[in-house]
Amino acid sequence: MALRFEVLGRFNRARAAQLTLPHFVSQTPLFMPVGTQGTIKGLTNDQLEEIGCQIILGNTYHLALRPTSELIDELGGLHKFMNWPRALLTDSGGFQMVSLLHLADITEKGVTFQSPVDGKPMLLTPEESIQIQNRIGADIIMALDDVVRTTITGPRIEEAMYRTLRWIDRCIAAHKRPNEQNLFGIIQGGLDPVLRDICVRGLVERNLPGYAIGGLAGGEDKDSFWRVVAQCTAALPEDKPRYVMGVGYPLDIVVCSALGADMYDCVYPTRTARFGTALVPEGVLKLKHRAMATDTRPIDPSCNCMVCKKYSRAYIHCLVTKDAMGSQLLSYHNLFYMMKQ
Amino acid sequence: MALRFEVLGRFNRARAAQLTLPHFVSQTPLFMPVGTQGTIKGLTNDQLEEIGCQIILGNTYHLALRPTSELIDELGGLHKFMNWPRALLTDSGGFQMVSLLHLADITEKGVTFQSPVDGKPMLLTPEESIQIQNRIGADIIMALDDVVRTTITGPRIEEAMYRTLRWIDRCIAAHKRPNEQNLFGIIQGGLDPVLRDICVRGLVERNLPGYAIGGLAGGEDKDSFWRVVAQCTAALPEDKPRYVMGVGYPLDIVVCSALGADMYDCVYPTRTARFGTALVPEGVLKLKHRAMATDTRPIDPSCNCMVCKKYSRAYIHCLVTKDAMGSQLLSYHNLFYMMKQ
Repeated sequence: MALRFEVLGRFNRARAAQLTLPHFVSQTPLFMPVGTQGTIKGLTNDQLEEIGCQIILGNTYHLALRPTSELIDELGGLHKFMNWPRALLTDSGGFQMVSLLHLADITEKGVTFQSPVDGKPMLLTPEESIQIQNRIGADIIMALDDVVRTTITGPRIEEAMYRTLRWIDRCIAAHKRPNEQNLFGIIQGGLDPVLRDICVRGLVERNLPGYAIGGLAGGEDKDSFWRVVAQCTAALPEDKPRYVMGVGYPLDIVVCSALGADMYDCVYPTRTARFGTALVPEGVLKLKHRAMATDTRPIDPSCNCMVCKKYSRAYIHCLVTKDAMGSQLLSYHNLFYMMKQ
Repeated sequence: MALRFEVLGRFNRARAAQLTLPHFVSQTPLFMPVGTQGTIKGLTNDQLEEIGCQIILGNTYHLALRPTSELIDELGGLHKFMNWPRALLTDSGGFQMVSLLHLADITEKGVTFQSPVDGKPMLLTPEESIQIQNRIGADIIMALDDVVRTTITGPRIEEAMYRTLRWIDRCIAAHKRPNEQNLFGIIQGGLDPVLRDICVRGLVERNLPGYAIGGLAGGEDKDSFWRVVAQCTAALPEDKPRYVMGVGYPLDIVVCSALGADMYDCVYPTRTARFGTALVPEGVLKLKHRAMATDTRPIDPSCNCMVCKKYSRAYIHCLVTKDAMGSQLLSYHNLFYMMKQ
């Protein structure tokens, strides 16, 4: 185990904690922006530190394709490659293969998919996912899981949950850097409380450095979503971080934190910025809207970020309707907004 | 006149000077990056100040179309709109209309062109160009000139030069903010020494705050280019800034400065960055090249810019082959390189 997790305060089920990782001491609850390919699109690392970003998520699948995990390893690891001094987390790569690629197929061995390079069938096993992540060198690495959409029902949910439990042992066995990298297990089981319960217990038995609640934010209704989070956080140990995967709407983060979760990741704040949308206390502000053209106010008059201190809605409107620079300013503001949560 | 120009040192014809403008005290020779629409694509103003950028060029044509000069005026001028505290220069808008638009036609009244908004014929007169630039509020504004390619010969060159001289008087008469904005005249006359001579004398008689050498960098051979610059700088007064328009290759800037020119502008360093090319002492470095993928050196080991201090060629290669962020880092480096000249 290469982390320390100290709960500093509690309010009902919510908690504020300090998460000490090999590269950074983070304060939770925290949001992790997604930097798919070694960069948060449009922002420099100086700006990310200025915003208060503590952990960046890198996508194993994208990094393994380019520049390749072997090259990252040779160049001294992802921290050095992207010149990011703070913490990093990598996903297993499995979800990208299932969601991005055609002909992906899951068997007991692993995830079989068509190589985007030469079209040949390739297999990502739990062992390989961990080996790649060991080379990349993030502070937190994720187990390969069998992800099933929450909108699916039937025996496939059960199969995926049990397979995830079988794969965690292969991941643990394959993990070669447990003193420098923390392997998190992922709870699956769809919306079924019994399956979720079996999975949580199974993972907690393995005494992992941290636990993720997976398979959510995939189209299920909010009540089901929160019910699963509440069930899992209640069953997870108090002294380990709890990460709800793929969650990025500010309201969801507030609710999940109230339920005792600590970590979140999502492309939402940066992707929505690229479409010209800013996060504000009232919800969202669409900067492409014509009314913005003559609006001299900042995006959010109550925000202290560099963009809100320096630029008007009218200026950003002028940029987002044409130039990439507009979405950079919005990404900056949106991530600042998320870090304040 | 709203500027002060003090020559601090001389070496043969070259000079180093201090140019005091309403918004900034600049050191010449200087290079002005082109920020077409109120932004240098991909860089924040903080970064531009860090790089040492003293004057930004805004394109009157683009700004007049969007957000419109009326709106910029209402919002307090371009400095305030784009939150740039240092100096600004706007071109006349004429060149863009001739170069970007079909059916542009030059008559004694002005430049007639097809409106990109509704396709109707529109006329930009010298009076209108100045009125628009008065609204935008840059430190330096440019007279509307009749630009002819240097590769053309015959009576059209003569007509354009005399028209430019006739239009300068209409520009001077139309200029409503001579105590806050400096109107620069533009020397035309193609590659013909007699016509260039008539134009320089005519403009110098008007005692303008500064002079530009126009119509160059348009495909003529280097000898002709340098000969025209040498002739014009020799005939221009010692106590006024001299601006060679559209010049941005480092070698050209060095030669023109040796010939006594002070100011330059070009899209080259930022445009070439967007194509993945970095300026280095040896010439250029193409970051998209495969050999860069495993090159752990900085772009230019002798460069002190943030990008060369923080990132490897391998990292930037990984970004430029896919992500806009790569060209942002290159733009930063390239403009830093230009500012060092």
